[in-house]
Amino acid sequence: MTVGNKIHLLATRLWNINRSITGDGVRQTLEILKEVIPDLQNHEVASGTRVFDWVVPREWRVRDAYIVDQSGKKICDFKTNNLHLVGYSTPVHRKMTLDELQGHLYSLPDQPFAIPYITSYYKERWGFCISQIERDSLEVGEYEVFVDTDLFEGSLTYGELFIAGESDKEIFISTYVCHPSMANNELSGPAVTAHIADWIGSRDKNKYSYRIVFIPETIGSITYLSKNLSHLKSHVIAGFNVTCIGDDRDYSYLPSRDGMTISDVVAKHCLKHICPTFKSYSWTDRGSDERQYCAPGVDLPIASIMRTKYGKYDEYHTSLDDLVNVVTPVGLEGGFTALTRAIEAIEKNSFPRVTVLGEPQLGKRGLYPTLSTKTSGTDVRLMMDLITWSDGTKSLLEIAEACNSPIWDLYPIIERLTEHKLIELFDQPTPF
Amino acid sequence: MTVGNKIHLLATRLWNINRSITGDGVRQTLEILKEVIPDLQNHEVASGTRVFDWVVPREWRVRDAYIVDQSGKKICDFKTNNLHLVGYSTPVHRKMTLDELQGHLYSLPDQPFAIPYITSYYKERWGFCISQIERDSLEVGEYEVFVDTDLFEGSLTYGELFIAGESDKEIFISTYVCHPSMANNELSGPAVTAHIADWIGSRDKNKYSYRIVFIPETIGSITYLSKNLSHLKSHVIAGFNVTCIGDDRDYSYLPSRDGMTISDVVAKHCLKHICPTFKSYSWTDRGSDERQYCAPGVDLPIASIMRTKYGKYDEYHTSLDDLVNVVTPVGLEGGFTALTRAIEAIEKNSFPRVTVLGEPQLGKRGLYPTLSTKTSGTDVRLMMDLITWSDGTKSLLEIAEACNSPIWDLYPIIERLTEHKLIELFDQPTPF
Amino acid sequence: MTVGNKIHLLATRLWNINRSITGDGVRQTLEILKEVIPDLQNHEVASGTRVFDWVVPREWRVRDAYIVDQSGKKICDFKTNNLHLVGYSTPVHRKMTLDELQGHLYSLPDQPFAIPYITSYYKERWGFCISQIERDSLEVGEYEVFVDTDLFEGSLTYGELFIAGESDKEIFISTYVCHPSMANNELSGPAVTAHIADWIGSRDKNKYSYRIVFIPETIGSITYLSKNLSHLKSHVIAGFNVTCIGDDRDYSYLPSRDGMTISDVVAKHCLKHICPTFKSYSWTDRGSDERQYCAPGVDLPIASIMRTKYGKYDEYHTSLDDLVNVVTPVGLEGGFTALTRAIEAIEKNSFPRVTVLGEPQLGKRGLYPTLSTKTSGTDVRLMMDLITWSDGTKSLLEIAEACNSPIWDLYPIIERLTEHKLIELFDQPTPF
Repeated sequence: MTVGNKIHLLATRLWNINRSITGDGVRQTLEILKEVIPDLQNHEVASGTRVFDWVVPREWRVRDAYIVDQSGKKICDFKTNNLHLVGYSTPVHRKMTLDELQGHLYSLPDQPFAIPYITSYYKERWGFCISQIERDSLEVGEYEVFVDTDLFEGSLTYGELFIAGESDKEIFISTYVCHPSMANNELSGPAVTAHIADWIGSRDKNKYSYRIVFIPETIGSITYLSKNLSHLKSHVIAGFNVTCIGDDRDYSYLPSRDGMTISDVVAKHCLKHICPTFKSYSWTDRGSDERQYCAPGVDLPIASIMRTKYGKYDEYHTSLDDLVNVVTPVGLEGGFTALTRAIEAIEKNSFPRVTVLGEPQLGKRGLYPTLSTKTSGTDVRLMMDLITWSDGTKSLLEIAEACNSPIWDLYPIIERLTEHKLIELFDQPTPF
Repeated sequence: MTVGNKIHLLATRLWNINRSITGDGVRQTLEILKEVIPDLQNHEVASGTRVFDWVVPREWRVRDAYIVDQSGKKICDFKTNNLHLVGYSTPVHRKMTLDELQGHLYSLPDQPFAIPYITSYYKERWGFCISQIERDSLEVGEYEVFVDTDLFEGSLTYGELFIAGESDKEIFISTYVCHPSMANNELSGPAVTAHIADWIGSRDKNKYSYRIVFIPETIGSITYLSKNLSHLKSHVIAGFNVTCIGDDRDYSYLPSRDGMTISDVVAKHCLKHICPTFKSYSWTDRGSDERQYCAPGVDLPIASIMRTKYGKYDEYHTSLDDLVNVVTPVGLEGGFTALTRAIEAIEKNSFPRVTVLGEPQLGKRGLYPTLSTKTSGTDVRLMMDLITWSDGTKSLLEIAEACNSPIWDLYPIIERLTEHKLIELFDQPTPF
Repeated sequence: MTVGNKIHLLATRLWNINRSITGDGVRQTLEILKEVIPDLQNHEVASGTRVFDWVVPREWRVRDAYIVDQSGKKICDFKTNNLHLVGYSTPVHRKMTLDELQGHLYSLPDQPFAIPYITSYYKERWGFCISQIERDSLEVGEYEVFVDTDLFEGSLTYGELFIAGESDKEIFISTYVCHPSMANNELSGPAVTAHIADWIGSRDKNKYSYRIVFIPETIGSITYLSKNLSHLKSHVIAGFNVTCIGDDRDYSYLPSRDGMTISDVVAKHCLKHICPTFKSYSWTDRGSDERQYCAPGVDLPIASIMRTKYGKYDEYHTSLDDLVNVVTPVGLEGGFTALTRAIEAIEKNSFPRVTVLGEPQLGKRGLYPTLSTKTSGTDVRLMMDLITWSDGTKSLLEIAEACNSPIWDLYPIIERLTEHKLIELFDQPTPF
């Protein structure tokens, strides 16, 4: 089974759960993720805890929610599709006219078959989301509204996984687990991230340590940062926010606020060689947890590698964002590959330096054609280019850029040249 | 009455005066300017004073000048149009043939109706300027030439106005008062500058002090610099040379020699948002007092914001550069607005820094919509962008550029955020 | 006789000699070059000497080489064209079938009339180069192959010329003398270089010293560097590798590895003003001795100014690269001029600074028109631009770039201004 298929299966397992920024949906999601990454740890932060400028909200529990029309038919049934209920709806149970009900309904006139995704975390209200088609068919009459929810002093839940490497410097990966049944935004995120964590754990050795979090968006990253900022600032050297990583239409990059961190350089390098027409967004287009990770004074080196970015595809934040038409195994595998390429590039980004002055005599080592003709040298051009830039001051990434080659094409050459002791690798710039 | 109309009226009052680089015309001009800016001070520098590589020339006085043709008709009458007399003409009174006279006449074959503007400050000669049409109509015969002028040991006159602000750091504004009856180059300069001075004086408070000079071009700025260079170098943080600021055709920018001073940055920012198609000249196109203010070793941060630049419009340096067809109230007001926008930008160019880590919770302060939908956030995008760039290391101008917004659109947002204590303003870069 | 004709004659004198990376052909070449540059010194480095990662190979001597076909006709006669013999062919004398012979023949199907240029310095083999036309006409039968060569412990030969200047800082010029009868690559190189050396020696005075070497390519530059690296690194401030400098089709530039040395800046500046459409190659396109001079840890400031670059013209490395159709007196003179312009620019690249504050009064020195009109100043614009950039921090080259003028147009202006004591020249940046 391809990794894309494995990731798609995992996302399918997570599909029906009613996630929100708090509640059992998050906890059930983390339990399923542990099937892939057993070392994932749960953390709970009590409602009311101050986190930077925010306060951890009350926990939200949904038992049931629906509307019954005058004919006795159940509509907007939460158990059929959890998008029907506005996130953090307060409880209500009473009858009302269609007119009054209309003030609590949300639909999308331009996408008549889609149920929109709506939340109201910080202002108490209740509401239902409904397709425009269904809304238009509602007849004047009496409607019974039933929202059986609780808002109570509970906690906010997140998962954290640490994979120790040779260095205590960390690569930080964050994804979110607060959206109900939608696929590209967001189930592609935790599903791909779990398999990236699995892949990291299975590598022969990791130069860097890895810290991977599954959190609710915005309030979750703010909460996590407020508890861990000083550790993160002194350890994290690179990282990615993983979201919208599962459809097969675009590849996209959104920078860190700084825009020039190693994460940014690596992301652009890998995407350019995977898909030269990838979309490069600017910080102005931000919209996910990079807003917190890169906030002034936080300034972690976090960039985003995505397939089609949130807000840039029609199905975004509606019931149409599904695992059938939007997110596919091929799309997920493409996202997985881009992210693992990027992580590998950071792992391998040493500073190579040749061990001899002048060009090495490759011929005597069997690395160069022995007959000099018009075209000899073309075949070994990439090796020669790698050698000529290996002056100890340029990282392998910079060399790959100078060679106009994906960094991964240089890995086997680096290996051959280090075997022949023609190249030495340094962790720091080390000029002659 | 609009400020454009006020400025146009002032220019009209100044129109008939015979200005030159010395003499009573400059003094009369300064007296009229004092109607708007009563604190303007006169300075006199004696003829013969060494000023850098130059010497203050003798003062020039004109009582009368004309030519009488053989039929007794007065032509080239200085009292009709002061452009008829070449600037700094030496006295002469004698009869001569047309042939001899021709050697002293200046006209423009390509602009047959225009009287050109000609001077000879540093070489003794006399001459008359005449339209090509009139010159072509002159008949062979005897002409009586009468130039009743003096060149004598007098002084060079300039005006200076100081407006104290909170800081002793100064913004320096220079304009010139040495051209006879021409409108864009130059009456727009002193007329707009007088009203800018009035506007500065009327502001609630000024962070910076202002030093504003009305001087003869070239020799005046050299004279002023030779007397004040060390004070200027230690106090002036920005400034503008004000010229050609009254027609309604172009907006233009000419850099300082350095090209990257705050005056340059502000000028380009403001013009871009006032008129995206503004003309951006290079230092190679220089031609006014920036040549002195930015000379090697002087190096004041002086840029030029103009409407249509000297030398770039047909009427330039001719009698066609008038207050009817070329300079208009609308043109003057546009120039006034661009310059006051630029000055205000320097005044307001602090280094904002957010007071909280992570994004502030704008919702609880009534600054953010409470319902999260597909499009919520668009309305507050500019506020969010301002916040995200407010890390204490970027000036408000740099932030405005990052937001792709005119800096003046940020002023009310800065005000609201400082009221809510979400933003603090610093005079210097102040990182977390 | 033009310098182009002189250079062409010298190349013609060198044409028939059988050069290789060692042997008497190099020595004969140096003897002929001494007719132009008598102070050229020979150096011999023994076979077997370790030079960086390489070893100086055995010396190669050719007495004769040819093939006799079954009809008794001599073909591939070395004495007719020395390209017929693969460079460094080992001795052989025996009969063989056409089939066996074919394994030792080299031809170019796409260029049927050309004899290719082939060498095998570091792997023992023998072979003949032949036009495709002739090869296709060979009939089945017995062939007698005769290669009368020696490979013996001798030495590698190179020539070196030192011309002392006022400073012990050196400009280094390298060209190569290891190719048999081909014109653009390579006879244009040593022929132009010899005349450049002659020109340098004939100048009134040289600010810098010059070190000029005539060496075999690759192994020669490696050998030279291994013996002289520390002296070169501490003395050489600029330099050029001279190759492919004799045809009249293109002008080309290939950078140093660093890309921003004074040699690079000068080369691009001069070529831009000689031929705005010159080809600018990148380090990736390297292929001559700059590979050694700019190798990591060597890093001499060596760039290449060429006419049509090696590998970029059809005749390259074939018998078609001749002194009739490819290299011409006009082509050689163009190359000579570009290189001498570049050398002169380095010699003259001081840091000018004006001696007065504000613009100097050029009029009183007869350097400026005395009558101020619409267009006065245009004629002296280049002088004014030179003055305005002469702040002691910009080199004459940078000023020439700012003025968009070839640096050589500034030489007479600099001379006039220093005569008038308006400009002072410094060797180092010397701000006010």
